[in-house]
Amino acid sequence: MREIKVVTRKRNEMVDITRDVQDVVEQENIDEGVAIVYVPHTTAGITINEGADPSVQRDIVETLKKLVPETGNYNHIEGNSDAHIKASILGSSVTVLIKNERLVLGTWQHIFFYEGDGPRTRKVIIKIFSS
Amino acid sequence: MREIKVVTRKRNEMVDITRDVQDVVEQENIDEGVAIVYVPHTTAGITINEGADPSVQRDIVETLKKLVPETGNYNHIEGNSDAHIKASILGSSVTVLIKNERLVLGTWQHIFFYEGDGPRTRKVIIKIFSS
Amino acid sequence: MREIKVVTRKRNEMVDITRDVQDVVEQENIDEGVAIVYVPHTTAGITINEGADPSVQRDIVETLKKLVPETGNYNHIEGNSDAHIKASILGSSVTVLIKNERLVLGTWQHIFFYEGDGPRTRKVIIKIFSS
Repeated sequence: MREIKVVTRKRNEMVDITRDVQDVVEQENIDEGVAIVYVPHTTAGITINEGADPSVQRDIVETLKKLVPETGNYNHIEGNSDAHIKASILGSSVTVLIKNERLVLGTWQHIFFYEGDGPRTRKVIIKIFSS
Repeated sequence: MREIKVVTRKRNEMVDITRDVQDVVEQENIDEGVAIVYVPHTTAGITINEGADPSVQRDIVETLKKLVPETGNYNHIEGNSDAHIKASILGSSVTVLIKNERLVLGTWQHIFFYEGDGPRTRKVIIKIFSS
Repeated sequence: MREIKVVTRKRNEMVDITRDVQDVVEQENIDEGVAIVYVPHTTAGITINEGADPSVQRDIVETLKKLVPETGNYNHIEGNSDAHIKASILGSSVTVLIKNERLVLGTWQHIFFYEGDGPRTRKVIIKIFSS
């Protein structure tokens, strides 16, 4: 089980962690298997999406903001209810297959940490299972 | 493979099942591995979020209601289209790592069964893989 | 690791791939374990929901369209920002347990490929882990 650190700079942003996850796969010398990439936070999430054009990340972040606004008629008084809700919409982990010591990602797919209540220093846990 | 029963009391609610999942991990004597927690229903889901302040659960439930209202221009005539849609938004399973016979959850993370069409008696399937 | 082909016919639709995944489970002769069903695309997703009444699929597709409209104030200029966002809402993989060479699905559960930017020829990757 490995842990990586993610430093976020905005309240809402997506941080590409594909390289970090691939590094762990290589360090563990796993030829074939699966990587579980897990976010142990409740105001952040994780998702796989396009990494080539950064405007896709902006569209995801902005659309989530529209769907779940920062301010609203919320019960939780910490001012980050929107971040909790987005965390549940995106999910707390992604599962990525491994073949020949490489993450099996589609051409455009990158793995993104989603920050919902930054800036903060966060962590992501990665566990590789060989098959 | 273990099965736990979840009795829900409202149409929409989140039920904390963290203790039940942890119990299964302990019964199976797994030192390190992963737990797959699976909901075999189509009008319920599962999510990981904050367990300390119950107002977070209320905010998640209420925001999902606003995004996907109970009544609308739906085709499905059983009156629970909203529950089906929320099930797909949240997802049917969560994956949680295990270390030293403990679920590797963040400080505030709990595992919640999401009821979308209760009250009902539901089940959750738990399977532990050791590594 | 197996790959199946999914041919979609509309811009937005759900395609039932349960039989294809079950076929792979049988071909691999796995008695007990887990199937990871992975979508290597960024404008498509995967979800488990009701397979009996097709109106549920229509309601999911239509509600996602309302939540994330095809046209809007998007940055990404390819005209498929909505599909990227829906891909992140639904997720890129589902995890389904296996027992006695059968997918452990609830009575009404089917596995659906979600097309967000069709029609296209897509692929789905299936990997079975035995336990």
